[in-house]
Amino acid sequence: MSVMTEFSFRLLATDGATRSGEIATPHGVVRTPAFMPVGTQGAIKGVHPDDVRASGADILLANTYHLMLRPSAERIAAFGGLHQFMRWPHPILTDSGGYQVMSLAPLRQVAEAGVTFRSHLDGATVELSPERAIEVQILLGCDIAMQLDECMRLPGDRHDIERAMGLSLRWAARCKRAFEHAPAGMALFGIVQGGDEQVLREQSARALVGIDFHGYAIGGLAVGETADIMRKVVEATAPALPADKPRYLMGVGTPADLLDAIERGVDMFDCVLPTRNGRHGLAFTRFGPINIKNARHADDPRPLDAESRCPAARDFSRAYLHHLFKAGEALGGTLLSVVNLYYYQDLMAGARAAIASGRFGDYAAQTREEWATKRDWPRC
Amino acid sequence: MSVMTEFSFRLLATDGATRSGEIATPHGVVRTPAFMPVGTQGAIKGVHPDDVRASGADILLANTYHLMLRPSAERIAAFGGLHQFMRWPHPILTDSGGYQVMSLAPLRQVAEAGVTFRSHLDGATVELSPERAIEVQILLGCDIAMQLDECMRLPGDRHDIERAMGLSLRWAARCKRAFEHAPAGMALFGIVQGGDEQVLREQSARALVGIDFHGYAIGGLAVGETADIMRKVVEATAPALPADKPRYLMGVGTPADLLDAIERGVDMFDCVLPTRNGRHGLAFTRFGPINIKNARHADDPRPLDAESRCPAARDFSRAYLHHLFKAGEALGGTLLSVVNLYYYQDLMAGARAAIASGRFGDYAAQTREEWATKRDWPRC
Repeated sequence: MSVMTEFSFRLLATDGATRSGEIATPHGVVRTPAFMPVGTQGAIKGVHPDDVRASGADILLANTYHLMLRPSAERIAAFGGLHQFMRWPHPILTDSGGYQVMSLAPLRQVAEAGVTFRSHLDGATVELSPERAIEVQILLGCDIAMQLDECMRLPGDRHDIERAMGLSLRWAARCKRAFEHAPAGMALFGIVQGGDEQVLREQSARALVGIDFHGYAIGGLAVGETADIMRKVVEATAPALPADKPRYLMGVGTPADLLDAIERGVDMFDCVLPTRNGRHGLAFTRFGPINIKNARHADDPRPLDAESRCPAARDFSRAYLHHLFKAGEALGGTLLSVVNLYYYQDLMAGARAAIASGRFGDYAAQTREEWATKRDWPRC
Repeated sequence: MSVMTEFSFRLLATDGATRSGEIATPHGVVRTPAFMPVGTQGAIKGVHPDDVRASGADILLANTYHLMLRPSAERIAAFGGLHQFMRWPHPILTDSGGYQVMSLAPLRQVAEAGVTFRSHLDGATVELSPERAIEVQILLGCDIAMQLDECMRLPGDRHDIERAMGLSLRWAARCKRAFEHAPAGMALFGIVQGGDEQVLREQSARALVGIDFHGYAIGGLAVGETADIMRKVVEATAPALPADKPRYLMGVGTPADLLDAIERGVDMFDCVLPTRNGRHGLAFTRFGPINIKNARHADDPRPLDAESRCPAARDFSRAYLHHLFKAGEALGGTLLSVVNLYYYQDLMAGARAAIASGRFGDYAAQTREEWATKRDWPRC
């Protein structure tokens, strides 16, 4: 096993709490701050993997819950792992499946041993323990695996949040042990829980650092809370995490959320927003969000952004994109998904460059200024 | 207006009744035999125009009926025409709208003046006369326009077929007159009708040749008749058409239909089959059709065709494509549509090369032999 395949994180620049760095994984380098497009079922919805790569994505996220149910982790392992199966030879982070069990599966029962649920596909009873979550992610062959955790909606009852946080910590320790069987180079991240309670978040972070992971995620956000609560939780949690390990804010978010969190020391993000909104006709651009289905675009010959690095943003008129959505042509959703993936990656590239030159404050202020003259970004 | 922009047809080689040639249009050359992918609403469903071009398509077909209703021919004209609107700078043939009026529009009334129908989108009453059909196609800016005709289902009543054939001829003459206002270089094709009656087909062909068009289509097929009837009608009609003009068999068909018709002297085809079947999980390959949703592909690591010129046919396993369809991921339909578009274009390229070297008989026999060892092609 060469040194190249080992997981490592290198900080390249800091600017206040803000950081830029490089994560080395067996399948390549991830530049941070990094945005991970979401390939829920082993595909970024409607987008060819070559276009995902061309957008500038170094890494994508795949959902363990979906893949373990269909086509199954064992089947993907038989094909040499998820990279080969979905034809994405670059880094992949898999979640643990916990979040989707809570949000999608009917009849779930959480116990100390793990969670038992019915598959939303065929009703079959499935058990997901910390050990099985790690086993599945090893079968998928990810570069970065996540511990199994229990994620609560916000606002929530403090007692429930504390109980789930405690359970997630015990599961974290079991995941760490199970991960001893992982191939060299694969990394495991712990997940900080604790809802919107600063003391619980700090307690969770300290305990996870004691277990020692390759990186740390802030979980339990993007679950219905306000942007203000999200900022406060990130601000309280990030300083409790070691500076020399990557920090990943799960399921976040809007472009504005990303700037807020980068400012507070977060390195990694994932969200379905670019592709989901793209399919629904919302384009992210330098000029703010554009709802292409709006009638005012029907006669607009301008592209979404003539200066964009993204061919789809340059090459098609707003009128044509509007027509595709009105006519129900799936090509419209694909083109806007691509536009949005480029926008998110360009936002990250801009952040990385700004941090490297010590002017992230200016970059964030200028970007927000452009947005402020437009309507609000939608929430993730 | 330079010579390059004039419409012309040049026969390059013949092999029995079979022909290969080149159609020059204002937007480029079309090599025949030619297959035209169908962009019903100004887009090849789910496929980026760059991928349509890369498949080898010289020309595509767009549906006048759909585009005149949404976004409207006037709107497309305001954008400089359909080529610019849909970002396809290569040749475009538009149909007249007649076929879709018959098959899609509710409450249609056919009269000598033209056809009146309700829009299937909003119920608005729309009139389509021969003159309006030409006006709309000029607004769209096509390279090849089609006359308005009345297309009957088969089998049909002989009296009805004869009446529709006669009406289509009178409409042909009116379209020819209306076409005097067309820009230089644009071409107009007449459409032979007459159902499955050889005498009517010959009568229709003679009358159209008397009017004098840039090319001639065989209409009223691919409407429910058997492959045998289609072959007989083509065999009876093609020899009645001038050798120095292109012949276009409308709405056809399966790969087998295409070989049959090329053998009988047809030069051009259009069909939704490659993309529609692709969206439904049916891939056309050298090894015969493959229904990728079939469970036997779930564990098959082979690509659809490792030797294919089409990246999608080479780069993804059958197991992964199967998974995409089972999971309802639209990427699967897009990839198989692309695979099928390449297959159709490769079939045409093979035919052109075989005709050029005087061995089309061998090419057709060998291709059919490969298919015969597989199950039947589905009907268009």
